Amino acid sequence: MARVVEVDDAADPRLADFRDLSRADRRPDRPGGRGLVLAEGTVVVRRLLASPYPPRALLGVARRVDDLAPDLAGIDVPAYVTDADTMAHVVGFHLNRGVLASADRAPAPDLAALLDGARRVAVLEGVNDHENLGALFRNAAALGVDAVIVGPECADPLYRRSVRVSMGHVLRVPFATAGLDEAVTALRAAGFVLAALTPGGDPAALGGLAGRERVALLLGAEGPGLSAEALDRADVRVRIPMSGDVDSLNVATAAAVAFHATGGAR
Amino acid sequence: MARVVEVDDAADPRLADFRDLSRADRRPDRPGGRGLVLAEGTVVVRRLLASPYPPRALLGVARRVDDLAPDLAGIDVPAYVTDADTMAHVVGFHLNRGVLASADRAPAPDLAALLDGARRVAVLEGVNDHENLGALFRNAAALGVDAVIVGPECADPLYRRSVRVSMGHVLRVPFATAGLDEAVTALRAAGFVLAALTPGGDPAALGGLAGRERVALLLGAEGPGLSAEALDRADVRVRIPMSGDVDSLNVATAAAVAFHATGGAR
Repeated sequence: MARVVEVDDAADPRLADFRDLSRADRRPDRPGGRGLVLAEGTVVVRRLLASPYPPRALLGVARRVDDLAPDLAGIDVPAYVTDADTMAHVVGFHLNRGVLASADRAPAPDLAALLDGARRVAVLEGVNDHENLGALFRNAAALGVDAVIVGPECADPLYRRSVRVSMGHVLRVPFATAGLDEAVTALRAAGFVLAALTPGGDPAALGGLAGRERVALLLGAEGPGLSAEALDRADVRVRIPMSGDVDSLNVATAAAVAFHATGGAR
Repeated sequence: MARVVEVDDAADPRLADFRDLSRADRRPDRPGGRGLVLAEGTVVVRRLLASPYPPRALLGVARRVDDLAPDLAGIDVPAYVTDADTMAHVVGFHLNRGVLASADRAPAPDLAALLDGARRVAVLEGVNDHENLGALFRNAAALGVDAVIVGPECADPLYRRSVRVSMGHVLRVPFATAGLDEAVTALRAAGFVLAALTPGGDPAALGGLAGRERVALLLGAEGPGLSAEALDRADVRVRIPMSGDVDSLNVATAAAVAFHATGGAR
């Protein structure tokens, strides 16, 4: 069980992980200049505690920390308990979820390990909006996508806002960062068919992938879509049928439709 | 063509439609205490000008108003042109889209008129988040849903934030507000099959609706879902197959998956 530590001073140096959260995503003192993994609210903290990311500390009001007692069994980290006002002073704004947890980042699995046993994979290119990226991971988790390959020009999946919008699922769906060449090589070696989702694709081909084992869906950002190179490397180009002059769906929504259409969980 | 009027005083009373936008959604001086219809950015303003909502005025920087000249042909409203700083003073915050339009609300079509000729309809119960509601209308437009029935406990589709998140599609997809009884009666009279989307539904039944004419999808809010009464009134209960312990999809995302699965546009 976590060590519960009562604190009443917002300036307590032991609360450094949670200080000034609106700036906490970029920390020059951390590897790569990136922030810690931060989870907000009992649901997401619970997912963090069950994730591969090594927890460092919790900060919360007594009631929320109590709620998490079963999840904290066997986890030896400090759980700082304070009141809502002190918490607001530490994090820099009022946080209505009442509990936070911090964790260290962890090395990503290598691609071969990531793909081993995976049936459906999403491959993201240029998804540089943290909320879209978070929503996409939530949809991947809900619709049975086993792993995500995140292109180097995508946003950081472990940014605080991505974690929150994903409802913590970015901490559960395994992912690795890889460029297109590396991703395509690994996917082909693992026997995946590569399907590019693009407005120029074939709507019938999307349903044709339903139930097929080893499908990798290539998804580009709203607006630019997939690069010409990504389209070239794909085995098949698919699209979601859409009404006349409507601009495309949000990338996370399009991903959800494609995840469902190509199989989904049972 | 709109009458272009240069203004340089943020206090100009002619700009009242655009004053203090963060509070503009509730106006005691307007019918029902609701705000005007407000569109932000050229794309959404263009949709407003093509919609049934009677335009009142535009406010924008010269370049954006110029961009809209073709859309303003034959529309006799004032287009107030000013600089970005003055605009920011009027609306109360910096608005990076550079143009706004206001319109009056318009009477909703009656249910029989709304359903006449519609093939697929969404029926919303308790969707009380403006952004989810806006996203849902965007998805309805993209995926060929012809009309939306909005329950009385739903958020206001014409709230400024809903309009923005919908990318203006809430101004194009016809909708009416109706309670469950009234909606079910009208839908049955028009020969619709009523399908409730619910975690307790049959996943096979969702695909069974594909391509069928006259399908009404009943959708409830995230969390509570559909009421027992709505479930009782439905002809069929369908669900999106999801992975084990994952909390449900966002309601707009679930709607997109269901819209696609039940037919979609060609």
